[in-house]
Amino acid sequence: MLRNLRRGCASLPFHAYRARGMWPAAMQHDSASLGERLHFRTGRVALRTTKRRKTVFDASLRDPDTLRRLLNPRSVAVVGVSAEPASFGARTITNMKLFDGPVHAVNPKYAGQELHGFPCVATIDDLPQGTDSVVLCMPRTGVVPSLEAAARRDIGGLTIYASGYGETDLPERAVEEADLRDRARALGIPLLGANCLGFVNHVTRLGATFMPDYVKMTAPAGGVGVVSQSGALGYALMQAAERGFAMCHMATAGNATDLDVCDLAAFQLTLPECRSIALVVEGLRDGRKLFELGRQARHAGKPIVVLKLGRGETGAKAAMSHTGSMAGSTAAWSAAFRRAGMLEVEDFDGLLETSGFLAKAPPPKARGVAIATPSGGAGIMAADHAEYVGLALPQPEEATAKVLREAIPDFGSPRNPCDLTAQVATNPAMYDACMRAILADPQYGVVVMPVVYHNPAPTGTPNRMKLMRPLAQEAGKPICIAWIPESLEGPGPYAVDTAPELSLFRSMRRLMNAISLWHRWHDGAPAQAPGVGEAARQAAAAIPASARTLMEAEAKAAFAAAGLPAMPDIRATSAEEAIAAAGRIGYPVVLKIDSPDIAHKTEVGGVKLNLSHAESVRAGYDGIIASVKAHAPDARIDGVLVQKMAERGPELIVGARRDPQFGTTVLVGLGGVQAELWKDVALDIAPVSAERAEAMLRSLKSFPLLDGFRGSAKVDLASVAATIARFSELAVALGDRLEEAEINPLVCLPTGSVALDGLMKLAG
Amino acid sequence: MLRNLRRGCASLPFHAYRARGMWPAAMQHDSASLGERLHFRTGRVALRTTKRRKTVFDASLRDPDTLRRLLNPRSVAVVGVSAEPASFGARTITNMKLFDGPVHAVNPKYAGQELHGFPCVATIDDLPQGTDSVVLCMPRTGVVPSLEAAARRDIGGLTIYASGYGETDLPERAVEEADLRDRARALGIPLLGANCLGFVNHVTRLGATFMPDYVKMTAPAGGVGVVSQSGALGYALMQAAERGFAMCHMATAGNATDLDVCDLAAFQLTLPECRSIALVVEGLRDGRKLFELGRQARHAGKPIVVLKLGRGETGAKAAMSHTGSMAGSTAAWSAAFRRAGMLEVEDFDGLLETSGFLAKAPPPKARGVAIATPSGGAGIMAADHAEYVGLALPQPEEATAKVLREAIPDFGSPRNPCDLTAQVATNPAMYDACMRAILADPQYGVVVMPVVYHNPAPTGTPNRMKLMRPLAQEAGKPICIAWIPESLEGPGPYAVDTAPELSLFRSMRRLMNAISLWHRWHDGAPAQAPGVGEAARQAAAAIPASARTLMEAEAKAAFAAAGLPAMPDIRATSAEEAIAAAGRIGYPVVLKIDSPDIAHKTEVGGVKLNLSHAESVRAGYDGIIASVKAHAPDARIDGVLVQKMAERGPELIVGARRDPQFGTTVLVGLGGVQAELWKDVALDIAPVSAERAEAMLRSLKSFPLLDGFRGSAKVDLASVAATIARFSELAVALGDRLEEAEINPLVCLPTGSVALDGLMKLAG
Repeated sequence: MLRNLRRGCASLPFHAYRARGMWPAAMQHDSASLGERLHFRTGRVALRTTKRRKTVFDASLRDPDTLRRLLNPRSVAVVGVSAEPASFGARTITNMKLFDGPVHAVNPKYAGQELHGFPCVATIDDLPQGTDSVVLCMPRTGVVPSLEAAARRDIGGLTIYASGYGETDLPERAVEEADLRDRARALGIPLLGANCLGFVNHVTRLGATFMPDYVKMTAPAGGVGVVSQSGALGYALMQAAERGFAMCHMATAGNATDLDVCDLAAFQLTLPECRSIALVVEGLRDGRKLFELGRQARHAGKPIVVLKLGRGETGAKAAMSHTGSMAGSTAAWSAAFRRAGMLEVEDFDGLLETSGFLAKAPPPKARGVAIATPSGGAGIMAADHAEYVGLALPQPEEATAKVLREAIPDFGSPRNPCDLTAQVATNPAMYDACMRAILADPQYGVVVMPVVYHNPAPTGTPNRMKLMRPLAQEAGKPICIAWIPESLEGPGPYAVDTAPELSLFRSMRRLMNAISLWHRWHDGAPAQAPGVGEAARQAAAAIPASARTLMEAEAKAAFAAAGLPAMPDIRATSAEEAIAAAGRIGYPVVLKIDSPDIAHKTEVGGVKLNLSHAESVRAGYDGIIASVKAHAPDARIDGVLVQKMAERGPELIVGARRDPQFGTTVLVGLGGVQAELWKDVALDIAPVSAERAEAMLRSLKSFPLLDGFRGSAKVDLASVAATIARFSELAVALGDRLEEAEINPLVCLPTGSVALDGLMKLAG
Repeated sequence: MLRNLRRGCASLPFHAYRARGMWPAAMQHDSASLGERLHFRTGRVALRTTKRRKTVFDASLRDPDTLRRLLNPRSVAVVGVSAEPASFGARTITNMKLFDGPVHAVNPKYAGQELHGFPCVATIDDLPQGTDSVVLCMPRTGVVPSLEAAARRDIGGLTIYASGYGETDLPERAVEEADLRDRARALGIPLLGANCLGFVNHVTRLGATFMPDYVKMTAPAGGVGVVSQSGALGYALMQAAERGFAMCHMATAGNATDLDVCDLAAFQLTLPECRSIALVVEGLRDGRKLFELGRQARHAGKPIVVLKLGRGETGAKAAMSHTGSMAGSTAAWSAAFRRAGMLEVEDFDGLLETSGFLAKAPPPKARGVAIATPSGGAGIMAADHAEYVGLALPQPEEATAKVLREAIPDFGSPRNPCDLTAQVATNPAMYDACMRAILADPQYGVVVMPVVYHNPAPTGTPNRMKLMRPLAQEAGKPICIAWIPESLEGPGPYAVDTAPELSLFRSMRRLMNAISLWHRWHDGAPAQAPGVGEAARQAAAAIPASARTLMEAEAKAAFAAAGLPAMPDIRATSAEEAIAAAGRIGYPVVLKIDSPDIAHKTEVGGVKLNLSHAESVRAGYDGIIASVKAHAPDARIDGVLVQKMAERGPELIVGARRDPQFGTTVLVGLGGVQAELWKDVALDIAPVSAERAEAMLRSLKSFPLLDGFRGSAKVDLASVAATIARFSELAVALGDRLEEAEINPLVCLPTGSVALDGLMKLAG
């Protein structure tokens, strides 16, 4: 039975569904709003596509080999260096003091002299031919002439600090920026920026940035590459090098005039020193570049930890007006990261710790997490957060337990979490024995070790950390230090950050989350997106180019053509035709008004359910026509659809929309009256495989309703998943034509599934 | 109509409801499990009440005046000081070097000499009469003799490091600990510990703790008092003093043999230096002490920020076996904190920052939050997190906007978040002008200022922070620094931590959460719990002492006696009696089996609905009796209840249970078949006022169902709330007799509400 219609309050109408917020917030903006003035203008990507469906996807990454001279140069120069030490140019060239290659300053006033300790030439044309990487410290107006000079000298790439391009919201500046990009691409010179703060190659100790005091960052290079759209945030991470945690490379995209964060990350993946990447993204012109970047990261075995800024509605709005149409919906971004195999974090705070851990940790040997602590309170804290992210805390094996029982006094706990007590913690031999036993237990893949007091003396915390290293190395398992003391820096943390076997987290929450992401990475690559089948292609092609809104009959016909189980119907234009149709279909039947002008059929009395004989069909037909004419006198009436009364079962809504960043997205959620209360939906990038569709269903809170909830029959999950997968293929096959499509409801039965109604909106 | 019964799958049975996890996890443990062996034994409160309902509530706090000599002494001594510098005693007395009062060591070997620079006496009996505070550095066995000696010398209080008491899980040790408590109380000597690591009075620079190097903590005392059950976690917070953030007082409760965290916090409230308290709690013997502590905190105008450890199920189990029956449910703790007016945080990480901000910030002058940043990325990040906690980010007034527009270049943003750009940020005069304008805007109560680069030079970040201080002071509004750089310590943060007008957060999430808690504190005290009405008292008293399980009829009778709208019924023991009853009640009626042995009536065919005439009542009666005899041949049958068929409306479940920490708790949730899917419940400490009950209803995701959802009639919310309030009073009036009580369902109607069924379980 059409259960929700019978309830008298109708299935959720298409637009109401959207309006009620079932789609994530940022996807609810209509096209009109996307052309709005950009209020929050801090620079960087500021394209304003007023017609989002026209977005062209260019998912190809820049060939990393073409960026090597720019980002990992053997020779560098800084153009526009003044004698003033606080100037951008002076600060930049001073940041190159530890770089072991030729460095030139460019300034006609000091040509032939030394400037800040480096040889100075008059112009770019005076630089050694083939200088790899050149930083332009100059206003916008000087950039194009410099680009042309750079081409003459075979420069490998330019870094542009200058701002005042598209981010100003002035149309002529956006044109100027596009022109700069086109010229650079024509000349084959890659650009970092504009409106960026440069890059740091910490392996070669090259600071190509105007941020002061890079030379103070003395920590040895680590395995993390940092890429940030926001320059300030990238350098904020880089400052960890002053306290002992150094990255191998840091690059900022700024306006991404030429290179965006994806291109930069793809380059870092090729650096042998790089073991993981921390990526901060606000928006992208071409969201699908994430997928190619993800494939390359997987191929390189180097996980990417990603933070999306502009996650909340307000933040998304800020980022949206900041980056034009490209902020997109947080849910779509999360789906894209998942599909790209990237590891998303929700806080800037955890980005470095998490990527640092992933850069160091070998693959997990087991899923279990052991907690070994000198403090009961810290043990409980660890257990709280482990559970929060669903990590297993198995109890020690007997062999392990025996060692622990013998060592730990009666006010401690030889279990997991293991409270070693301060007594064991201050006895190195016993501590070692306990840690060895725990590390040897095959149930544990990682040991979490809270440190509750920072003793900076060499014999204190640093020594304890040093003693842990061979233990971790022998076991081939990482030790994660949960750093509890509010003494945040110093010799203790330094000893951990510089140890390949240990990772430090200043937050138990972040620590446990990082372990969970580590598991996810080593669980393997996400499934590749399936292809779009021939049936979907043909069904899409069969829809006339002039079609805009497909009401029930046409939408279901398209679904059926794509191989979806849609409830067939027969259009009748008289009561007699309806009776004849019912006879062919078999009783009981349903009648529904068929009008291009009526989306909400029940509201105009346009639906009659469960009609079981010819007379009720006749009465139903006449009743519908009369009621519709009364309620919607201007509506065109194409007839009445006759269809079989469906069996009763749980109802889903399956929708598809075009996302400005990621193309077609597909959404599945609980249907029915209360759907909007629970907002119980799953979203992914289309097309999805049946396997992925089933995972989406299983992620719903309401999944038990499909799975034999309280004694009801289990639905045919394979059929439901296949229906969603085929629907997603049809949506993708429609390409840019698709605005929105929806099955509502999809009734799920033990014997299959059936689309009872649908709607499609197509663009011209 | 009895809607959920009509669905054929019955109302959620009482026990099933619990088993399905509608009550928070930790409340699902039955009494039997509470006597289980304590596996995780790290010390501290380890009472094992095998009968939780016998828990005696002693909600009174220790009089702070009686703790002054112990915790804020003028003279101190350390007993058991050896010459070995690493010993507990030596470290303790060394931590007293900066204390400006008499300090004595006690050790017969060095009597008459100096030890670690302090005069040494042989025994406690040789100490100056009336020494205020004495630390015992000795094993457990020496404690009682020392206590007796202390009494002879009029010592003001003892700190006990020794462990090995109840936390060992050995029954004789628990007895020993109780004996120690009784002796100390009889002698009038308060005890800190046992199994604690002492306290620090940073105002008088007294470190009464064995943790090393307290004298290195040079930062001036701040306004935060720290109290922690776990000693290690307390001292971990104290270590912030090494980097510039100092507390005024820190005390650890350990086993809480005598004084628990509530007593210690209540004492700190009386210190003039204390402006807020950071409290870490694992479990309490007497949970209701929180309420008295909360009242005192409100009276003193000093907010308490609290972290409950053992929040997750695993963590709760660890803490439960750790603290016996007293870990309780996270939801009940949260409800208790809310009722106590305490500000709960979920992470240890944010405890100090949040309490530090609350210690500094004056009351908010407005709700709006302004974000002023040199970095667009940081602005988006701030907006993301502001939205996450529901903070308003109003746009600047025209006067403000004018100043901003004039100062900020075209690649910045004169809005909120306000991107000042690095250009303004590096121009002190313009920066000042912008900050002044924003601070003067009456919409803003606080300005969030992300710092994205730490320049430790005196002219760098410290100077910028210094310049902000008079601006904040003049405006009477706090400035919150969002500290973005991974350079975590040093002159920049020091300048903020030591400035009364500025607060630093190393996490945007924590910053926005702290602002939200600041608003909550200044919104005023939570409503006091209502009294228990006479009707509830009489209804409770009327239930015979022998009653254990009250099935529908008796439960509803008790509800009705307490003034609750319960559906009346008439018990019939024959079909004729049933017909007569139906005649009196009026058709249509419902029949339900009445048996002390049958909780799930529909499962045995014990319910007939919507009977509209005498013959159907007769058939119904006979059918019920026959069916019950067939399905449950051994069940005692008291008869059949005849009652009016109810109107249809949204259904709630209202429950009450006895919590080991907090006494009676009340829970409200959506009823019906899908209830367990959504776990949409609200819990509070009973009794609740009708106002609070309405707030509980409004906190439900499903609240719209009561409030005119999709055109349905609004229910009489006042009646529903009053029913919940009265139910909670009845539950409280039952006191320790209550095990569980439930109305299921409570049907909510536009004209009122009615309890259609109920159950109560009472203890002997």
